[in-house]
Amino acid sequence: MKLTNVKIITPYKEFKGTIEIEKGRIKRISEEIEEGENLEGMIAVPGFIDIHTHGIGGYDFTSWNNKDEFLRNLLEMKKLYVKHGVTTFLPTTVTLPRENLMEACRAIGEIYDDAIPGIHLEGPYINEKYAGAQDPRYIRIPDIKEVRECLELSKGKVKTITVAPEKNLDFIKYLSDLGIHPSVGHTDADYETAAKAFLYGADRTTHLFNAMRPFHHRDPGVILASINFSKYIEIIPDFIHIDKEVIKFLLNYVDVNRLVAITDSIIATGLNDGYYTLGKTIITVRGGKALTKEGKLAGSTLTMDNAFKNLVSLRDLKDAVLMTSLNPALAVGLYDRGSLEPGKRADIVILDESLRINRVYVKGEIVEP
Amino acid sequence: MKLTNVKIITPYKEFKGTIEIEKGRIKRISEEIEEGENLEGMIAVPGFIDIHTHGIGGYDFTSWNNKDEFLRNLLEMKKLYVKHGVTTFLPTTVTLPRENLMEACRAIGEIYDDAIPGIHLEGPYINEKYAGAQDPRYIRIPDIKEVRECLELSKGKVKTITVAPEKNLDFIKYLSDLGIHPSVGHTDADYETAAKAFLYGADRTTHLFNAMRPFHHRDPGVILASINFSKYIEIIPDFIHIDKEVIKFLLNYVDVNRLVAITDSIIATGLNDGYYTLGKTIITVRGGKALTKEGKLAGSTLTMDNAFKNLVSLRDLKDAVLMTSLNPALAVGLYDRGSLEPGKRADIVILDESLRINRVYVKGEIVEP
Repeated sequence: MKLTNVKIITPYKEFKGTIEIEKGRIKRISEEIEEGENLEGMIAVPGFIDIHTHGIGGYDFTSWNNKDEFLRNLLEMKKLYVKHGVTTFLPTTVTLPRENLMEACRAIGEIYDDAIPGIHLEGPYINEKYAGAQDPRYIRIPDIKEVRECLELSKGKVKTITVAPEKNLDFIKYLSDLGIHPSVGHTDADYETAAKAFLYGADRTTHLFNAMRPFHHRDPGVILASINFSKYIEIIPDFIHIDKEVIKFLLNYVDVNRLVAITDSIIATGLNDGYYTLGKTIITVRGGKALTKEGKLAGSTLTMDNAFKNLVSLRDLKDAVLMTSLNPALAVGLYDRGSLEPGKRADIVILDESLRINRVYVKGEIVEP
Repeated sequence: MKLTNVKIITPYKEFKGTIEIEKGRIKRISEEIEEGENLEGMIAVPGFIDIHTHGIGGYDFTSWNNKDEFLRNLLEMKKLYVKHGVTTFLPTTVTLPRENLMEACRAIGEIYDDAIPGIHLEGPYINEKYAGAQDPRYIRIPDIKEVRECLELSKGKVKTITVAPEKNLDFIKYLSDLGIHPSVGHTDADYETAAKAFLYGADRTTHLFNAMRPFHHRDPGVILASINFSKYIEIIPDFIHIDKEVIKFLLNYVDVNRLVAITDSIIATGLNDGYYTLGKTIITVRGGKALTKEGKLAGSTLTMDNAFKNLVSLRDLKDAVLMTSLNPALAVGLYDRGSLEPGKRADIVILDESLRINRVYVKGEIVEP
């Protein structure tokens, strides 16, 4: 099967050409117009990859009663994500009681779906001071045994854990040795502690700027340390969590290959304003902005297609693709996806000139619309 | 007269060679060893230029009883500055009652000394919220008539005024039209207001990060606006006012040609710890750190030779020279000094290999030691 006469965005260049698909993979890409599905005026980008999302459309990964409900939600959500061009996502938990955490890991262990290659545990090993919307009652000190159990139940699919490194630097090294990508976040770490965390094996930062010790010119803290040392840096490009000028600044200072767009989206995403939950916390959504009763931001209602549009408004198509597909893939070790290249999974989003989603291919098959 | 066999630092390159001096100016620079004063093992840099200094060695520009005392102080201070390699400085006032301000301007108008080409008025048109150690009682709204009077009394030697732009954007334009370099500082300006100030003619920022609305990722304010738009940016490189890592960050992000090292030094500089004054404010100096009774930083006890050393530790000789000589000169329109180039004033600091001052030439004459 061939998609042709389409503008193709690769990590290296963009050109009009043809994508040949075979057995769910990209077989060949050419810069010629060939016989095939003519997509004139359209743009082909890799499927979006959201490695930090809590929920969408009334479902979420932060509250459910049992593993089966979690699994049912997961499959419903997959359908909703793909409408926004997301072909891979990591269900992301929050700080939860032990038994809920284990149920989530057990559910992930039972599902074999390429779209859901693993789980992101955001907490519970975080700092109360920067818990954000997470429930401080369930925060605990780093627990190697608990992690090992999660890893077993999930069948090795714990891809990343958000940790406050000041709680235990050695824990970072331990996670890294287990092949879990330690992500620095929800933390009060000063510059030196955070820098050490990255030198101990942390290779990611969870939503830079949000829920961490703020930058000060005499105490630059975890923010400057992440900018200097974190291999990958999550940002929420909804222009609410971070001012647009600050994202522009980051794009100027940090190599674009290090920036990972995430939604941090919650259950209310795509729904009306109102009251929702994040874990055990009540959230008010007004004008798409999610807040705790103390007025703290509590995740977002951003979708990846909008994240993509926002990033294109600051840069170009290629860089927006890096931040929404390739970088998130590499940040959690998914090397079979994230770019339009021969050999990679044929997860392809076709956008019209206004960057609206026209259709979505998953492993070469149209699933949307 | 020739200085030879000396490492010469120019804005373009460094090399061993000869500086030929005639009638107080640099006549010629060559990359040859010639007949002359042999300065083997030494380094020649332009005299340091401090465009923001309140005092040194028991004298200052913020409290005195009359014009004659101001003038006497000025000449004593000149001798102290030059011991630290400073061959040009702008006496810098603080927020003062009208009559004191006028006396300072009158004094500057009566002195004809190349080392003191003008005055820096730091205030009184600043924001109370970020007055720092300045006395809020004398803060006033921008007053064009007062400025014009200062300019007349000083015989046109008001080089720069530190202003909070949120008080009156048009005032910035007015200063700029008068040939005074408006400097954004002691301000609560948000990003847009500060950006506008720079587009209205402000071309400097007063001690970036200090005494201004702090950076926040959802309210990047005057700090990010200065970084984006200010032609010149003052920094206090004592590693107290700004963390060393933050200066490194600035050096990475901002072209080095935009950074101006200042001391912001006060009366206590070079003296023992104890109690001093800054304008009408009591200052405690402990371990060289100057604080108000509320614990706010109140200027520094930094000297330019130490500023130079600190900057060399972060970069190289050439960049340190730019920040301590050429950039401050250009930032206030002094085009006859600031670099070792034919035609420029022969203000030259000779440093040994440890960057200690060996001797200082002012207009080709040794004045130190």
